[in-house]
Amino acid sequence: MIDLETLLKHTIPKHVLHHGLFVMQAKLEPIRLLFEQRRVPEEGWKDDVIDFLFTLLSWMDTDKDPKGVRIGEREARVSSPFVSKLAHGFCHGVGRSGNITAPQPKAAGTSLIYFFTNKLALDMLQRAGAPNLKSACVLPLATGMTIGLAAAVAGDDTRKREVVYPRVDHHSPLKGMQLVRMKVKIVDAEISGDAVRVPINKLSEAISKETAAIVSTTTFFPPREPDDVKAIAKLAADENIFHIINNAYGVQSRRIMKLIQGAIDAGRVDLVVQSTDKNFLTPIGGSIAASPNPSYTEKVSKMYAGRASAAPIIQFLAAILSLGINGYEVLRDEQERNRHLLEKCMKKVAEKHSERLLNVFNPIAVAMTLTNHEAKKVGYNMYTLRVTGPRVLEETDFGICCRKYHSPYITMNAAIGSTEKDIRLATSRLDRALKQAEK
Amino acid sequence: MIDLETLLKHTIPKHVLHHGLFVMQAKLEPIRLLFEQRRVPEEGWKDDVIDFLFTLLSWMDTDKDPKGVRIGEREARVSSPFVSKLAHGFCHGVGRSGNITAPQPKAAGTSLIYFFTNKLALDMLQRAGAPNLKSACVLPLATGMTIGLAAAVAGDDTRKREVVYPRVDHHSPLKGMQLVRMKVKIVDAEISGDAVRVPINKLSEAISKETAAIVSTTTFFPPREPDDVKAIAKLAADENIFHIINNAYGVQSRRIMKLIQGAIDAGRVDLVVQSTDKNFLTPIGGSIAASPNPSYTEKVSKMYAGRASAAPIIQFLAAILSLGINGYEVLRDEQERNRHLLEKCMKKVAEKHSERLLNVFNPIAVAMTLTNHEAKKVGYNMYTLRVTGPRVLEETDFGICCRKYHSPYITMNAAIGSTEKDIRLATSRLDRALKQAEK
Amino acid sequence: MIDLETLLKHTIPKHVLHHGLFVMQAKLEPIRLLFEQRRVPEEGWKDDVIDFLFTLLSWMDTDKDPKGVRIGEREARVSSPFVSKLAHGFCHGVGRSGNITAPQPKAAGTSLIYFFTNKLALDMLQRAGAPNLKSACVLPLATGMTIGLAAAVAGDDTRKREVVYPRVDHHSPLKGMQLVRMKVKIVDAEISGDAVRVPINKLSEAISKETAAIVSTTTFFPPREPDDVKAIAKLAADENIFHIINNAYGVQSRRIMKLIQGAIDAGRVDLVVQSTDKNFLTPIGGSIAASPNPSYTEKVSKMYAGRASAAPIIQFLAAILSLGINGYEVLRDEQERNRHLLEKCMKKVAEKHSERLLNVFNPIAVAMTLTNHEAKKVGYNMYTLRVTGPRVLEETDFGICCRKYHSPYITMNAAIGSTEKDIRLATSRLDRALKQAEK
Amino acid sequence: MIDLETLLKHTIPKHVLHHGLFVMQAKLEPIRLLFEQRRVPEEGWKDDVIDFLFTLLSWMDTDKDPKGVRIGEREARVSSPFVSKLAHGFCHGVGRSGNITAPQPKAAGTSLIYFFTNKLALDMLQRAGAPNLKSACVLPLATGMTIGLAAAVAGDDTRKREVVYPRVDHHSPLKGMQLVRMKVKIVDAEISGDAVRVPINKLSEAISKETAAIVSTTTFFPPREPDDVKAIAKLAADENIFHIINNAYGVQSRRIMKLIQGAIDAGRVDLVVQSTDKNFLTPIGGSIAASPNPSYTEKVSKMYAGRASAAPIIQFLAAILSLGINGYEVLRDEQERNRHLLEKCMKKVAEKHSERLLNVFNPIAVAMTLTNHEAKKVGYNMYTLRVTGPRVLEETDFGICCRKYHSPYITMNAAIGSTEKDIRLATSRLDRALKQAEK
Repeated sequence: MIDLETLLKHTIPKHVLHHGLFVMQAKLEPIRLLFEQRRVPEEGWKDDVIDFLFTLLSWMDTDKDPKGVRIGEREARVSSPFVSKLAHGFCHGVGRSGNITAPQPKAAGTSLIYFFTNKLALDMLQRAGAPNLKSACVLPLATGMTIGLAAAVAGDDTRKREVVYPRVDHHSPLKGMQLVRMKVKIVDAEISGDAVRVPINKLSEAISKETAAIVSTTTFFPPREPDDVKAIAKLAADENIFHIINNAYGVQSRRIMKLIQGAIDAGRVDLVVQSTDKNFLTPIGGSIAASPNPSYTEKVSKMYAGRASAAPIIQFLAAILSLGINGYEVLRDEQERNRHLLEKCMKKVAEKHSERLLNVFNPIAVAMTLTNHEAKKVGYNMYTLRVTGPRVLEETDFGICCRKYHSPYITMNAAIGSTEKDIRLATSRLDRALKQAEK
Repeated sequence: MIDLETLLKHTIPKHVLHHGLFVMQAKLEPIRLLFEQRRVPEEGWKDDVIDFLFTLLSWMDTDKDPKGVRIGEREARVSSPFVSKLAHGFCHGVGRSGNITAPQPKAAGTSLIYFFTNKLALDMLQRAGAPNLKSACVLPLATGMTIGLAAAVAGDDTRKREVVYPRVDHHSPLKGMQLVRMKVKIVDAEISGDAVRVPINKLSEAISKETAAIVSTTTFFPPREPDDVKAIAKLAADENIFHIINNAYGVQSRRIMKLIQGAIDAGRVDLVVQSTDKNFLTPIGGSIAASPNPSYTEKVSKMYAGRASAAPIIQFLAAILSLGINGYEVLRDEQERNRHLLEKCMKKVAEKHSERLLNVFNPIAVAMTLTNHEAKKVGYNMYTLRVTGPRVLEETDFGICCRKYHSPYITMNAAIGSTEKDIRLATSRLDRALKQAEK
Repeated sequence: MIDLETLLKHTIPKHVLHHGLFVMQAKLEPIRLLFEQRRVPEEGWKDDVIDFLFTLLSWMDTDKDPKGVRIGEREARVSSPFVSKLAHGFCHGVGRSGNITAPQPKAAGTSLIYFFTNKLALDMLQRAGAPNLKSACVLPLATGMTIGLAAAVAGDDTRKREVVYPRVDHHSPLKGMQLVRMKVKIVDAEISGDAVRVPINKLSEAISKETAAIVSTTTFFPPREPDDVKAIAKLAADENIFHIINNAYGVQSRRIMKLIQGAIDAGRVDLVVQSTDKNFLTPIGGSIAASPNPSYTEKVSKMYAGRASAAPIIQFLAAILSLGINGYEVLRDEQERNRHLLEKCMKKVAEKHSERLLNVFNPIAVAMTLTNHEAKKVGYNMYTLRVTGPRVLEETDFGICCRKYHSPYITMNAAIGSTEKDIRLATSRLDRALKQAEK
Repeated sequence: MIDLETLLKHTIPKHVLHHGLFVMQAKLEPIRLLFEQRRVPEEGWKDDVIDFLFTLLSWMDTDKDPKGVRIGEREARVSSPFVSKLAHGFCHGVGRSGNITAPQPKAAGTSLIYFFTNKLALDMLQRAGAPNLKSACVLPLATGMTIGLAAAVAGDDTRKREVVYPRVDHHSPLKGMQLVRMKVKIVDAEISGDAVRVPINKLSEAISKETAAIVSTTTFFPPREPDDVKAIAKLAADENIFHIINNAYGVQSRRIMKLIQGAIDAGRVDLVVQSTDKNFLTPIGGSIAASPNPSYTEKVSKMYAGRASAAPIIQFLAAILSLGINGYEVLRDEQERNRHLLEKCMKKVAEKHSERLLNVFNPIAVAMTLTNHEAKKVGYNMYTLRVTGPRVLEETDFGICCRKYHSPYITMNAAIGSTEKDIRLATSRLDRALKQAEK
């Protein structure tokens, strides 16, 4: 924008100036590359570069125009500089009343942010294992809300109102679908050994002529296993109904992303929904709707009524810029190592306390029986030992996804972003928690 | 928490220390008062005090525990310090999957923030003119989305799916209601002199046994006038149906708040929805659902599926803390003066260019005919003159709220937060814009 | 540096992008102008623009080079991002070991900052009333230290070690001169009516063949009056000795700057030293050495041994950019009004309590007798009433600048940056303080 | 200050509130410990805790008093929030005109900061290897300036003006001593094998009855070796003169700190001066004067004329809080490993290019001959290869510390804060630089 070399002539010695501009250029290079390539960078960015990019783009919004006059009822006015800082200057929000991804003429900068966010979200999902996804849209909504919007798209498209839902005991997706008035037909899971699964034939049976969609799930606490999304994709194709995958925290796992890739290749997958925070280490508040078919993500984006907070958008963009592809893969490697370690450590604890690990497929979490302990007390002990995250369930609690499980259990996660220290400390505290909760 | 007087003994001279702690106490006093009174402060806070409060509260969330171990799939981990800063440390979001206003055990600080936000939102609405409102809930959603949630509450409660809607040509509320599958029966407005109004008898006629609710509107561009919410409230009471008021940017206006107070007193008002940004100078992204009946705001808050971004919540809280009651009243005084000035200035311009002001009740905006000018060109000229916000409509455009209006027109706002300079510059540029668009 | 128009093609609609870049350009315009004109801007800058400029320039320093390798013993490494933030990224300090204003090859950005700082400091002093100053250097040192350096220059140049010093009872300048081993010959002031002045003939007598310089003072608490710098300049010219003016907080006053301009025109002035914080509302820590003769400021700048903190430099630059010429003149107008008001208010208080104002020339402060009150108690009362800044002196205290004054007194300032509210509150509290301290 | 448990009753559920306050307490614990123990923490602090401490303390300064009235000529007023932020709110500077370490009554917070800074500086030096140091004072001045102040103390105390100075070719200390008018008698170094040293007998001979002090040096570029401070300490004791050690970047080295400890035990050491940035990873701008005798650091602190910038003080405090003792020891371990690695890598490069390492004692840097290369070109090549810090000298350049050295050479540092990557890259680029500079 400004030719610094010329402007700064006769200030400091030429060779010092020249070297300084050279360094500045090197700092700005990631931004140039982003604009040019529109992909997630290989190397993560330093915080100061992200901050700079955001400042620069926020200066394209009309509320920054020093000679602009603002005479509308909504002009991104703020009550104090601190309030603006809370939005990093992106005060116009994203979208227009008709479409949340539509560029907002008053806010060129925010619109660019959102453009790059969606581009990079797709790039990230593709490189994370599902190259057959073809469009993505980051929404400033909880995963459950976005599943609701996705279900609404299915409902509008098919003019049917029923969703077949392999049982997952989680309020949010259910509430999301109910909000948009879909009738959810829950199909109970069954126990097979230790695993809790919904058999494909039961799903098949549940489909009626009123069925608009199946909503399957890839990530939940063991012993509930991921749904067989490939089989469900084939079923959906056969039945000509929508297939929405709730991939809440599946992006972190190479194995789960492979399942999704396989499902798309093998049958029908219309929308895949995932959390930004659970997969990409952002503050809670966003989700990504992705699809092998761009028209579906567009339909989802048109469901949102009004302009929305830009905060979850910029938080997600900042997060993936700071990670970069390499950073993300490093985290995934670490996640896999930690999952391994968690199993090893929990097994030792289990043996010591006459419990056993549940034999279930789950690339993120591990579950252990609590047959000989007071389950609720174990949970309470963990909390007072400052361990957050473990879940303790008894045989008929909400959460087991079936009628009755064979024993109480505790689950712990080796989720992306956890450290080896977390795993070691958590399992050693589990040891203590069990000691104090023997029956 | 820490007794500084004792801890800091034998550091600097006693009287200097003492005076220093006295000053610190004076800086902290607004925080103490907020915790004690739980009301909007009389005087607005300085930014540094708000910042400090937020830091302190964010340190109550479990992700800050230096000795905590985090083993869940969702633990507010972030990819870099900058990402955390974008959320001011409130990385857990608000709410639980069952209820967005439910305290989140992992996030005591964010839960407190949300508690105070809702308390202060109600206090603000009451002191802004509607003391008969009895509960409020700030949602991280566009006004249109919240109107949708409100309509869904009406639908669930009445088990009916129809909404009678005095026509307002704005996509968001419509889309919000459609998202939750309410059938919107739009009642066209009629022209009466210059004013565009929906007669109460037409609304009455539109009500059927399928009607769950009427959704009325207090703020829109002239010549559309505010709905007669008092008469509608009586009608709703008579018909035993819900009455939801879209009070999008009405809080800024004492007159409109008086209308709402009157409506509540006279008949039935179940939910009043308003924008945070349009009324309280926050970044776009939030809305407030308020009600004379706490059970309705609670039902609205339970509609949200999942945990949501805390950003719109903290932005709103920061905004009203920085304003204070006095600051807000100063802004309202200024708004009224500016509205007056806008009318005076536009009148002059109109006379000069052989146009006239539309004779319509509207406490925020002013409209002027464009009979002798190329309307679209006037709009374009204003944009290139760096004026954002004016709206130019021709006789049958979406926006007129009736079949056909008698002439094209332009509207401009004297909204809260606008300055006298904005008004003067905008009207002088309008003068220029007209000159270049004579027919 | 980056051609955004081309790089961002096919992102958001062309006209939105275009308008966005137009706004960005408008935000960047002050920076371009600064680089081009190298003068204090007419209009003060917004904080975000100053912040941006600083970030951009700090990215020219070698410690920011992403591919640089740093193998020296001093490479601006910092222990944490917060530490870097405390320096706004200018971690290399200013200067080289030989000369504090010499460009530092490792730090092109900091060197540019310092270049502009000194340019703007001179421009500011010239436009503030002394256009006959021809060079300026901002030093990260207290005014007293810089007076010491200036005296050292006089000592080196003349090869004499004595300074004649019209008595001002302030430790710092004295200590500064003693540090560099100048022998200070203090000439007592005398009382003339209420005024305390050093007669020119006494100064003339004090000069010996050992005298290197006279150090005069323009600003001190009344009843001490500003030295007659014009007469001293003539004396210095006649005697062929240095004349250093301690203009500590004189820049704020148009009248005092006029005196300095007159002194330079009429005789000999070698160096004029002023505080950055007292004149330009920066944090304490800097001073400006200025001269009608560039070689003298250069000699001062070569006195500093080593590289110095960049903090006082960037704080000063930020301050004058945020003020602008217009902002500074507004503050000076306000200072003049406040000085007037202070006199008026104090006079009322004085009459009420049977005291009187001292009849002394001082464009910033006002003094009042404390004949009928316990002076020390008045001082103490003011402190407990939370008034900082007033000085209370008894007849023979250090501070009176002469052998014995005719009565105790209190002085209060209407300094630049004070508000009308400060003046009104301070004098009303003075009223209270006097009541409780009657003899 | 505020009892949150009681104040926040009836907000969120009791157990959530309780846990939240527990986490907050854990975050605040380092601050409590600092206030109580007044020592460098074992574990480094997180940036947010340092930031919080600084905010809290800055709120003790009178300029923050919301009901205070400021009527002095110097009240820490600032022109904009950004300017205040540049000082992190510590706008009063440190010290009083009489003594830079004296508490400033208007600035209790800054005074506390300075109190802790000096306490922790001493603690750090003691634990870094010199427990026989008994007081320390951090000065916002370059090391060279502080050596000047130290020499001035020696001059005043002994009433003599000569300093004997084992030759080190560095401008700053020389200029510092000259500024305070000490006569520097430089004693040339001699070559012994590869090493450049000043023999103790030559120093002994140089001492005259005019000698106030010897100023020795522990850290410089090889082949100049550290002075034998123990022998010099004995000599100083015998001759009853001051001994000032310029320990510029010696704190990082356990071996050098051992030399200092030994010197203090064996003879006379009055003041030890070190850089904050070179040892503790702060931005450039501060130095520490330490002494086995508290009266000497006090005398140094009284030399500064006026109030000074608080910036170098808070930067240093932030740096050591962020490091902690453990963090510092980790850095020192790394420094030692890197020094080792540097030697190994340079040796390889030397052999490849027919040069050899100089056989000299130096725990930080390594030197290599440039007999068969164009020395100046090697230096230039390194610069264009983006390596900063290496020094290239020819036989008679300023820097060799003796009459003539036996060959040209290049030195590179493995200083504290350098990474293994720095060492490897620098030496591999040296390889390239040599290739292109063969004679």
